[in-house]
Amino acid sequence: MPDLHLLSPQGFRAAAVYAGIKTKHTPDVGLLVCDAPGPTAAAVFTTNTVVAAPVVVGREHLARTSGRLRAVVVNAGNANACTGRQGERDARRMCRLAAGVLGCAAEEVLPSSTGIIGHLMPMEKVERGIADAGQYLGNSLEHALRFADAILTTDTKRKAAAVEVKLGRQVVTVAGVCKGSGMIGPRMALGDGVSGARGRKGASGSMNRPGRTAGKTGGTATGRGGTVRGATGRSSRGAHATMLAYLTTDAAVPAPLLRQLMGVTSDATFNAVTVDDHTSTNDTAVLLASGASGVKVAAGTLEHKKFAAAVLEVCQSLAYQIAADGEGATKVVVIDVEGAATDADARAMARSIANSPLVKCAMHGNDPNWGRIVSAAGMAGAAFDPDRATLTLQGTVVFRNGQPVPFDAEAVSDSLKAPEVRAALSCRLGKGHATCWTCDLSKDYVTINADYHT
Amino acid sequence: MPDLHLLSPQGFRAAAVYAGIKTKHTPDVGLLVCDAPGPTAAAVFTTNTVVAAPVVVGREHLARTSGRLRAVVVNAGNANACTGRQGERDARRMCRLAAGVLGCAAEEVLPSSTGIIGHLMPMEKVERGIADAGQYLGNSLEHALRFADAILTTDTKRKAAAVEVKLGRQVVTVAGVCKGSGMIGPRMALGDGVSGARGRKGASGSMNRPGRTAGKTGGTATGRGGTVRGATGRSSRGAHATMLAYLTTDAAVPAPLLRQLMGVTSDATFNAVTVDDHTSTNDTAVLLASGASGVKVAAGTLEHKKFAAAVLEVCQSLAYQIAADGEGATKVVVIDVEGAATDADARAMARSIANSPLVKCAMHGNDPNWGRIVSAAGMAGAAFDPDRATLTLQGTVVFRNGQPVPFDAEAVSDSLKAPEVRAALSCRLGKGHATCWTCDLSKDYVTINADYHT
Repeated sequence: MPDLHLLSPQGFRAAAVYAGIKTKHTPDVGLLVCDAPGPTAAAVFTTNTVVAAPVVVGREHLARTSGRLRAVVVNAGNANACTGRQGERDARRMCRLAAGVLGCAAEEVLPSSTGIIGHLMPMEKVERGIADAGQYLGNSLEHALRFADAILTTDTKRKAAAVEVKLGRQVVTVAGVCKGSGMIGPRMALGDGVSGARGRKGASGSMNRPGRTAGKTGGTATGRGGTVRGATGRSSRGAHATMLAYLTTDAAVPAPLLRQLMGVTSDATFNAVTVDDHTSTNDTAVLLASGASGVKVAAGTLEHKKFAAAVLEVCQSLAYQIAADGEGATKVVVIDVEGAATDADARAMARSIANSPLVKCAMHGNDPNWGRIVSAAGMAGAAFDPDRATLTLQGTVVFRNGQPVPFDAEAVSDSLKAPEVRAALSCRLGKGHATCWTCDLSKDYVTINADYHT
Repeated sequence: MPDLHLLSPQGFRAAAVYAGIKTKHTPDVGLLVCDAPGPTAAAVFTTNTVVAAPVVVGREHLARTSGRLRAVVVNAGNANACTGRQGERDARRMCRLAAGVLGCAAEEVLPSSTGIIGHLMPMEKVERGIADAGQYLGNSLEHALRFADAILTTDTKRKAAAVEVKLGRQVVTVAGVCKGSGMIGPRMALGDGVSGARGRKGASGSMNRPGRTAGKTGGTATGRGGTVRGATGRSSRGAHATMLAYLTTDAAVPAPLLRQLMGVTSDATFNAVTVDDHTSTNDTAVLLASGASGVKVAAGTLEHKKFAAAVLEVCQSLAYQIAADGEGATKVVVIDVEGAATDADARAMARSIANSPLVKCAMHGNDPNWGRIVSAAGMAGAAFDPDRATLTLQGTVVFRNGQPVPFDAEAVSDSLKAPEVRAALSCRLGKGHATCWTCDLSKDYVTINADYHT
């Protein structure tokens, strides 16, 4: 079986070219197009009140078409944020240009941009890039990889995942690529702005570990990490980071179901990742369903359940890859909270722990400094009683019922040298649970974010 | 006029000794005692649900005595946090020991501890320290300095401030010392736990710049910074930090008025400082009024207003000194937000900007990266419209009405090399305003917090 990739689902093509927007010579303008007759789409966007022009236009296009998108046009190197009316005109023009190349309506195109804030888009380059990309559309692995590269900025690694899932006797594929390394504290919500907003996320935070099959999809996750060709370090000096994710599937899924799925799934995956808790102006995740497999997914069916698990698995893998490639990261830090009064409480505590610079520094130094973790849980504004709580670090109990538990500090410190470390807090207050993914805080984070000028 | 200090207000004595709790040979056990007949006191404490034993006991003693404290007993080197019932017994014993030395009731003593979490107090050392300190009580400058040193952990500088204020024809003094460098994200509230809690602070966030006379106190602020004697770097390896503040005055102030004052003032000062937004288990600020000057402050009078301004001025100075000595700090970063819909919105935006690692790294690198500041305001969950907003960096407008304003990047970068830098955001939505103080994020912060083991 060949490796799965973004264009494995039937009905999709993509292309990406270098148009000279990024300083680094890697693709920076990309097109992803759905050729099938009745595509559906759903997307979540940043809840920051400062939104980039492509987010404004993307929300509008999704609403106008009731989720019938045909294409995505992306660029890296310029975020088109804080660019006023001209920025919005440019985002609309990108859609018109893509629509012209692809033969669809402009409102069937979702635009995304990532890069520096506060600079007008170099539209001549963008225009040439879109026209060029239109000449090279295809559905090969190489096309998928180039599109994945066209959204990278400070990322050191390409991020992709895909899974096949058997629905009845048929097989559909769910795939995705994403970007994100710094300015990562996504709080994305459906266009209505209801779910996913700070402090009032709607969905369950229950997470399986990425790489493990989620649910009973029978699928095989294919992480497609790996250093970007030719990249020897952070690729775009001065670029603002953001998180962008593009998911494809050849299942036929009604738009309302797709929307519900994206809301729930992004809360449990992308919205559970934090590098620096800074919510970007451009965060976007979109799922395009071509329907080209002919396999229908109806709400409330077993197929629905299996398909949802597949989407969750792909998004989990992508979210994990963002944490692992966090700016300056040397390891992934997984925070599990269970037994909280509610899922919302569990999420608040997991996020508070994951965002604490003191916890992140301790993890960087392989220091089993549990006092920082317990106190970070206590400051989350959630119900928490340390006298009932148990904390384990890499499986070793270090704190229980309000008091330290003697442990072999050297052995636990050694266990923290792994590429993935896990702190698990059990609260004994209820059934709420959540997982957050973050990374350690190293001097390299400071170097990346302080030692250059915009 | 001699320099004012913590013991300049009439009716106070203090002492501090080295009892061997800190690894560094500087005072680590201290007593502050009020000898006047009718003292009053008010305190705010951490709102973390994980509270150290001395906070539990301190809250109880304040409630039981209705704010008639006679003394404070402090130690550095051990936080007595996450130490279970034995920790609480030890905190109570510290009060009994101090009471025995001073000839008062144990419940008239407030205990405070700072240092490592999760270790039982070395009570033999503490007992000897309290007994020793009792032999050396005095009200000289030297006594005040030694007491100020006895609360330091990772601080590199002693922190003190004092001001005289004329009430009618008489003069009263307000003075204070504090500590704090890392694990600084205070959210303190009166014992009732109402004000100051996360996201629902009660008081106005309006701040004057420390060092400028606040209101019409006619007072003279005397900052008493300066490197701790013999300290050549961070003094207590492995110590957890926290914020502690002890304020003295010889005005006669009814306990309810003192409480109201401390709630409002700490919200506008200590609760507006953040180094790493990590709320400690031990944060405490207490104001003791001896009444020994014979000058009465009654609610609603002109004296009340002037006295409140003096307390605000001292607390502002102390809060500022904490930001300036933040772990790894090379500069103070002042975030002013005005024109927000409400003061609460202004505080949320100021705090979001002040806590962003991206903003703090940019300030460290003298990078006029205004996109990070505007987007941090937008993620605060407050009403904010970038199309109405103006942002200045060190007085230079860099963003207005949703769009960048061309500026001399080199000149602004140069202006960011100052020991104090200021970002001012004007929202044009209402009359809400707030100021937060933070510091830049440097590699030294990571060194201090990652490169040692507990």
